[in-house]
Amino acid sequence: MPNQADRYEALRLRLIDAAERTISESGLAALKARDLARAAGCSVGTIYNVFEHLDELILCVGSRTLAMLDGALAGVQSPSRRRSAVAAVDDLVRLALAYLEFAAAHIVRWRALFEHRMSEARPLPEWYVQQQQHALFAQVERPLLMLLPELDTDARRILARTLFSAVHGVVALGLEEKLVSLPLSDLRNQLAATVRAIAAGRAELRSIDGVGGRTDRQRR
Amino acid sequence: MPNQADRYEALRLRLIDAAERTISESGLAALKARDLARAAGCSVGTIYNVFEHLDELILCVGSRTLAMLDGALAGVQSPSRRRSAVAAVDDLVRLALAYLEFAAAHIVRWRALFEHRMSEARPLPEWYVQQQQHALFAQVERPLLMLLPELDTDARRILARTLFSAVHGVVALGLEEKLVSLPLSDLRNQLAATVRAIAAGRAELRSIDGVGGRTDRQRR
Repeated sequence: MPNQADRYEALRLRLIDAAERTISESGLAALKARDLARAAGCSVGTIYNVFEHLDELILCVGSRTLAMLDGALAGVQSPSRRRSAVAAVDDLVRLALAYLEFAAAHIVRWRALFEHRMSEARPLPEWYVQQQQHALFAQVERPLLMLLPELDTDARRILARTLFSAVHGVVALGLEEKLVSLPLSDLRNQLAATVRAIAAGRAELRSIDGVGGRTDRQRR
Repeated sequence: MPNQADRYEALRLRLIDAAERTISESGLAALKARDLARAAGCSVGTIYNVFEHLDELILCVGSRTLAMLDGALAGVQSPSRRRSAVAAVDDLVRLALAYLEFAAAHIVRWRALFEHRMSEARPLPEWYVQQQQHALFAQVERPLLMLLPELDTDARRILARTLFSAVHGVVALGLEEKLVSLPLSDLRNQLAATVRAIAAGRAELRSIDGVGGRTDRQRR
């Protein structure tokens, strides 16, 4: 016979499952506490015994989306033995294209990742920030280490974030029907060419310092 | 004495002004028909005599934001006489930095531009699509013509959109407090270095065809 902790955990999972269904099918705006309570078989008040606030529940779904994305990106890099700059550029292109495929295949829940803002200016919990950093930026750092070995760790970390952001921008506005969307095959070409151009012009990225840094250009 | 058309136009402007205040101070989510009606001194029902739906009113505010952005970007390009590649790269960097400054200075209404989606899958009106194209992409085309004169018009137009999107991504995620935001000076450096890298590696962009095209790479 399940004890109270088991029942609590089971209810918690039912609520996350219900929220995940809504967010992945209809998006964040469709999420209503009343519907969640009905789907999980509890009262609306009980939701707030299990989760501090709806934001926490939304982050649990976001965490699942990030884990899916992390998995989708993890498989695309070349084996670690090939340590050439050519292999690194190919890896960056593959990561960018895998990100595009993920976003296109899971567009509603992927959008929710970026649309969600904590209410009442609550800070994001540290576990979520860590997972987000890992899923979005960490995999970009390995090819960058091959391409720009002279960058220090901080500078590489920030550059990984910047490259991810540029790719994200091309993917997000490319899939956005509001801006007259491109066919997916065109979008793939644009994305791959942009990443290859950044990699080919990478000497310009060497001038980036780490946190709080100035560029070489300014120092001269 | 004002006639009915004047009164109608005055009410229309009061409603757009009220919506603009709300959207630029508190964002799209804060926009409520009841508050608008109170601010403009009319009934809620009257709003829908003046605007077909709230989306139309939101687009009128978006149009003002786009005009502001267009103006902010229009001033930063070098005079047309300097037609060198170096001047073109500088222009692209200046446009990117001006976009960052605009977004940082008007972050709430700038976000609203990209968050808004038409309800009930209504298409965007053509006048808005045109203005959006102009404000966001058209100014990028001139330096691109100097940098990559061999691209045809279609390819240049799509590439302008892609470059804008990459810059937008760096700006949007850079200003997003959710992703551990960077100091603005670091963000400027990252953005300028990314644009310079893309420009320096632009030979990779030559392989992009126009609409429905394939890259040279695939054709070989």
